[in-house]
Amino acid sequence: MVTFSDIERAAEVLRPVAHRTPLLSSRTFNALTGNEVYFKAENFQRIGAFKFRGAYNKIHSLTAEERSRGVIAHSSGNHAQGVALAARLHGVKAVVVMPQNSVAAKVEGTRGYGAEVVFCGDSTDDRERVTASLVAERGCTLVHPYNDPVLIAGQGTAGAEIRHDLRDLDYLFSPVGGGGLISGCAIAVKNLFPRVKVIGVETEGANDACLSFRAGAIVKIPKAVTIADGMRTLSVGELNFEIMKRYVDDVITIPDSAIFPMMRFFAERMKIVVEPTGAVAPAAVMTGAAGLKGKRIAAIISGGNVDPEILKQALSAAGS
Amino acid sequence: MVTFSDIERAAEVLRPVAHRTPLLSSRTFNALTGNEVYFKAENFQRIGAFKFRGAYNKIHSLTAEERSRGVIAHSSGNHAQGVALAARLHGVKAVVVMPQNSVAAKVEGTRGYGAEVVFCGDSTDDRERVTASLVAERGCTLVHPYNDPVLIAGQGTAGAEIRHDLRDLDYLFSPVGGGGLISGCAIAVKNLFPRVKVIGVETEGANDACLSFRAGAIVKIPKAVTIADGMRTLSVGELNFEIMKRYVDDVITIPDSAIFPMMRFFAERMKIVVEPTGAVAPAAVMTGAAGLKGKRIAAIISGGNVDPEILKQALSAAGS
Repeated sequence: MVTFSDIERAAEVLRPVAHRTPLLSSRTFNALTGNEVYFKAENFQRIGAFKFRGAYNKIHSLTAEERSRGVIAHSSGNHAQGVALAARLHGVKAVVVMPQNSVAAKVEGTRGYGAEVVFCGDSTDDRERVTASLVAERGCTLVHPYNDPVLIAGQGTAGAEIRHDLRDLDYLFSPVGGGGLISGCAIAVKNLFPRVKVIGVETEGANDACLSFRAGAIVKIPKAVTIADGMRTLSVGELNFEIMKRYVDDVITIPDSAIFPMMRFFAERMKIVVEPTGAVAPAAVMTGAAGLKGKRIAAIISGGNVDPEILKQALSAAGS
Repeated sequence: MVTFSDIERAAEVLRPVAHRTPLLSSRTFNALTGNEVYFKAENFQRIGAFKFRGAYNKIHSLTAEERSRGVIAHSSGNHAQGVALAARLHGVKAVVVMPQNSVAAKVEGTRGYGAEVVFCGDSTDDRERVTASLVAERGCTLVHPYNDPVLIAGQGTAGAEIRHDLRDLDYLFSPVGGGGLISGCAIAVKNLFPRVKVIGVETEGANDACLSFRAGAIVKIPKAVTIADGMRTLSVGELNFEIMKRYVDDVITIPDSAIFPMMRFFAERMKIVVEPTGAVAPAAVMTGAAGLKGKRIAAIISGGNVDPEILKQALSAAGS
């Protein structure tokens, strides 16, 4: 299990290198929803998403001998860039396994942080086969995107910062992909505010954590269809689920149709760029999915790395 | 003339109501330009632009009798919303004269802050005629968009904040429309850093301040053609020009073509939404228009109120 002390230690590790991201608020959003809402702006984190926190803490924890053999990650998204930058800052070689059909900008972004990119086929099987063969061949260490206690402690530092910045808190809303962010942050906020409710949010087309939470056991869905690309994991990690069972109060879903209006609100009213996955937790508050009024709520914006074409579509969304 | 004490008093007036906007930086931008650059993010100011500062300070300075008769402004842009919100916060009635062809969203925004909108024809003559007749009829006070010492002191509080947040500064880059922002901020920064260079930036199609600066007298251009709508004033104000002659070191221009790439950089790399006029001063640093290396530079982002269609065009710009 991961403890609050692990998160405090991770915060010390991250202090010199990570951004201490702000809590943003909007009078208009508060008036519309009838709550006092604080957005934890991880779109302003290095590499544009919270993923830098966990990757850095993980690579920092490796022995000199492990570091000399390098690290490996498989990801087509923010974890790839998080590992690439965290490795470079440690002088460690990184290999990232990405599907052949990855967005060119993300491949370039990962290479831009100095990582070697190795392509694999589209299927999970192919990705795991390529990764396993590289681990066997080079002896490098896998940095798992969510199912790792040291990485979870790193992601939890976002929650620790919320905890320090707010005097009191009724609810924390966090998006759920593999469960790394919510599990770390739930531990952090419950340590100070034992009565805070932690709510995970997924999109309807990627509702594996919601199903798992209801069933009391990990449910793997056959496929995840959603614009929120950070949520396309088919099941949460085992360690993540253990923590969620203990510290998370509920997991709810929103429709994909709530995402673009939320992104447009962020751009038009708050002048910030948020990626689809980053809009999921705020959208649950905006749409009133949780039926709250008069509450003090923190909602995590997990990242801001959105393809310009997708952002343009969001800016055409109705409402705001 | 406006003094630093006036700006300090304005800062006291604004403290309870205005946002203290952050100074943002980007490792990528610094690496690309070879300078240490801080962006004063007035896109995060109330109403999404610095204009709130001056309008609030001005309305705050009115007597009870003047307040009871209300205020009037003519603007199709951020000044309209600044006056509307500042008036509402003082419980003062506001009338805003806008051209009939104003963007619907800006009309709605101004009404949303509680102002009455009166339409006029497109020409400057028509606008002034309508405004003058309303002043005569209702006895309300005109809040000029730039040529007013109390308003200038309010805009200068942005410069005072930069001054307090940075230990040292070599250059301040500010956009120039009517000259309200640059004149207030120049006074503020030169008070602490006497050797700082203050550089005004315009677009080539709205280069009246640049021409005036070279000529040593106010030059009025026949028309201003630029995507940067906050710069479409045909000449700077008299008081503004007096201050600029004393405190501004140079006024330079950038082509309109530099604006969209700068807006795209802000969205993609820094996750912030900046309006065309807000990108002008940063673009001068990005394009190396001033030929600087190794300098500590503050560049003001004047606002973030961009029409979604314009932002979409910027996101399609080449480069970033």
